[in-house]
Amino acid sequence: MKNHHQFFEDLLGERYLSSPETMDRFSHDETEDLKVLPLGVTLPETTGEVSQIIAYCYENNIPMVPSGARTGLSGGAIPHAEGIVISAEKLNQIIEIDELNAQVTTQPGVITQVLQESVEERGLFYPPDPASKGSCFIGGNIAENSGGPKAVKYGVTKDYVLNLEMVLPTGEVIWTGANVLKNATGYNLTQLVVGSEGTLGFVTKIVLKLLPKPKHDVLMLVPFRKACEACAAVAKIYQAGIIPSGMEFMERDALVWTMNFLQDQTLPIKDDHEAHLLIELDGNYPEILMQEAEQLLNILEAFDIDEVLFADDAIQKNKLWRIRRSVGEAVKSNSVYKEEDTVVPRYQLPKLLTVVKSLGKEYGFKSVCYGHAGDGNLHVNIIRGDLSEELWQNELPKAIRKLFSEVVAMGGTLSGEHGIGLVQKQYMDIAFAPIQMNLMREIKRVFDPKGLMNPGKIFD
Amino acid sequence: MKNHHQFFEDLLGERYLSSPETMDRFSHDETEDLKVLPLGVTLPETTGEVSQIIAYCYENNIPMVPSGARTGLSGGAIPHAEGIVISAEKLNQIIEIDELNAQVTTQPGVITQVLQESVEERGLFYPPDPASKGSCFIGGNIAENSGGPKAVKYGVTKDYVLNLEMVLPTGEVIWTGANVLKNATGYNLTQLVVGSEGTLGFVTKIVLKLLPKPKHDVLMLVPFRKACEACAAVAKIYQAGIIPSGMEFMERDALVWTMNFLQDQTLPIKDDHEAHLLIELDGNYPEILMQEAEQLLNILEAFDIDEVLFADDAIQKNKLWRIRRSVGEAVKSNSVYKEEDTVVPRYQLPKLLTVVKSLGKEYGFKSVCYGHAGDGNLHVNIIRGDLSEELWQNELPKAIRKLFSEVVAMGGTLSGEHGIGLVQKQYMDIAFAPIQMNLMREIKRVFDPKGLMNPGKIFD
Repeated sequence: MKNHHQFFEDLLGERYLSSPETMDRFSHDETEDLKVLPLGVTLPETTGEVSQIIAYCYENNIPMVPSGARTGLSGGAIPHAEGIVISAEKLNQIIEIDELNAQVTTQPGVITQVLQESVEERGLFYPPDPASKGSCFIGGNIAENSGGPKAVKYGVTKDYVLNLEMVLPTGEVIWTGANVLKNATGYNLTQLVVGSEGTLGFVTKIVLKLLPKPKHDVLMLVPFRKACEACAAVAKIYQAGIIPSGMEFMERDALVWTMNFLQDQTLPIKDDHEAHLLIELDGNYPEILMQEAEQLLNILEAFDIDEVLFADDAIQKNKLWRIRRSVGEAVKSNSVYKEEDTVVPRYQLPKLLTVVKSLGKEYGFKSVCYGHAGDGNLHVNIIRGDLSEELWQNELPKAIRKLFSEVVAMGGTLSGEHGIGLVQKQYMDIAFAPIQMNLMREIKRVFDPKGLMNPGKIFD
Repeated sequence: MKNHHQFFEDLLGERYLSSPETMDRFSHDETEDLKVLPLGVTLPETTGEVSQIIAYCYENNIPMVPSGARTGLSGGAIPHAEGIVISAEKLNQIIEIDELNAQVTTQPGVITQVLQESVEERGLFYPPDPASKGSCFIGGNIAENSGGPKAVKYGVTKDYVLNLEMVLPTGEVIWTGANVLKNATGYNLTQLVVGSEGTLGFVTKIVLKLLPKPKHDVLMLVPFRKACEACAAVAKIYQAGIIPSGMEFMERDALVWTMNFLQDQTLPIKDDHEAHLLIELDGNYPEILMQEAEQLLNILEAFDIDEVLFADDAIQKNKLWRIRRSVGEAVKSNSVYKEEDTVVPRYQLPKLLTVVKSLGKEYGFKSVCYGHAGDGNLHVNIIRGDLSEELWQNELPKAIRKLFSEVVAMGGTLSGEHGIGLVQKQYMDIAFAPIQMNLMREIKRVFDPKGLMNPGKIFD
């Protein structure tokens, strides 16, 4: 690697890092228990630099790992011990907000929330809002096809990506599509790249579709005495023709732990509240929102609920959303845990929750569940607590296999929005037969014949 | 082929056709001037039969062409002279309407309108509605990623496809994904197959996402004295935060020819009306629709428009939509023509129209334009009229090349919803560099190593 260091230093100067201290920062994402030090970290500022870095690595057989804000939960950005990291940190410019066509063109290293706020200043709306939106990069959202609470009404990242500039693993630069809302011109390379976890190339520019920003919203927190009823209510609401802009499920412990974690927040959670739904409605007409909220309450009254808390103003709304967004961190701070990003057709949610709890009884683990109930996307957090090493290392993977087998039998799959990365690939055989896996591997080979771009992610 | 006939007859009995008369029916789609007789037509009823047919063809190197209702406009379903057709006609069952999860599972040979009406009976909504919805198959919509008027608000076919069962060109059967609204589990094979024009396999089952059906709509026809202003109005309406459920552009001749074609319809079209916009708003609250309609009229009044025609009732609405849906047929019945399915970012529409007309002057052709203005998707119909053979065969392709070059320079591309098929592949080099074309060809090779599935479509 010695000579290689020289190349990167010559190309990037101080934007090439290789000291042990800096390596540490790039050695992990938010996935538990994963840490690999790379040989060097590149911080390119332009597509041209990315292309030069990648072409050099390709020629010299150096593994490359694209890296965003490293907020991922499946290890997709974990470095390769014999390779370099290509960080998006300095590719952090919003290139153009095109109000006339309701599109934005951006580099990948822009923080998702910064992008959202920038387009909102022009009355435009980029809906996908993962819990980490305050720190994650839009490029990482493309890599993992991120979701978030608004997906139930507005869809996930893939539904907003019109076109991508990408440096292929050979160093060549392509655009995957065109800046249009409809496209029937050849294979959809854009959608193939979205969610491919940085294994097909390094995305350097992103063209996103935007919507007009809805002017009003209503937010309510609904306590359920039975967690399964909270899940069942989700399908009922949708069946009534109401499409909330958020429909989040939180088990009792998820909320209580988050209160403890945040310290400065309180909610009237009673002993008999097994779970809560956080429901948001949005639109342009306040009177319609109130009408829909009433209709919603009528539906909810068929279930065993306690008093509904309406957020009165922006401060209360932010408080409730901050609590919801902090659940992940709160769980993490509480105990070692493993998070499974299960997703099923939404009506199967109660059954999924039952399966989780019954596996917990069988294998002796505690779980805390929360997530995007409107999409059938339940984050199952399996808590280490005082479980033995034997159970944690050897028995738990068996329980997770059983869980995913049930999920797939329900029409669901392994990950709704976190990706496969390093930690979930051992379960891919549950969702896919060898023939599907071969198709994916062969597609990978088309883009990356030497297998140097983010190697070992999604599949071996 | 003699022995091969025997195999298909044994497998399918009367559902294998090879008489010259029946070959004729399958020899063409709705694309002008294209006709190829196949050696035989298979009419499988089950996935198992499709698999057996394909496995046999693969082993015996027989080209296969998937065929739907043959309403396509790019020649995607034109048979191969040395091959067989696999028709979806007998794969015509809706397998399950799942109200609880708002999904439908269907075979590919169901007529799109039949599918729409079947789910509407349960209060559900499948929005994509190509002009040919009364005769086209949902499987063909998947192949071409079809759009239609509602795409401006609700998106195109790809936005509703959750999962596909597909027989690979080798005869093996896979599911491309899972029946979930969010998915970050490996490469998105589902979206790769949508719009791949039957070149990657034969889709045998389709799982679609459904929405609650909106309860009300408003429809208006707006006459513009300048066609360019009709285009410009489209971006203005969107910028005001209104998202119509239809925003269709029709040049004067498109409407007049359609009146003549239908005979039983009249509209108050005046001499100085250069173009019309047909605008639909939908939603659940009539009072809101009226409010939005007023807001819309305020925006339109900034342009040189004549009196707006509001559809009073369902009969008038159907009349206006019938006229819009008949434009394609009317143009076809009027003259030999060539249709280009141009698509650009929507604000570029006026510029696109100007380019079309100026190329018409340069090359001496007349054009009639109409289409989905809200998506920037303009169908440019170049009319043969009394153009010389020399101009039509040799000069016109040059004009079309110039047109597409301008379209691509505007951020647009070759096809919004008709696909590339046979007739547009000569222009693919304008939209894609050799490296992108190679990626697509290599992906094709991954699925179809022998190149037997719908050969010669999209690329040679």
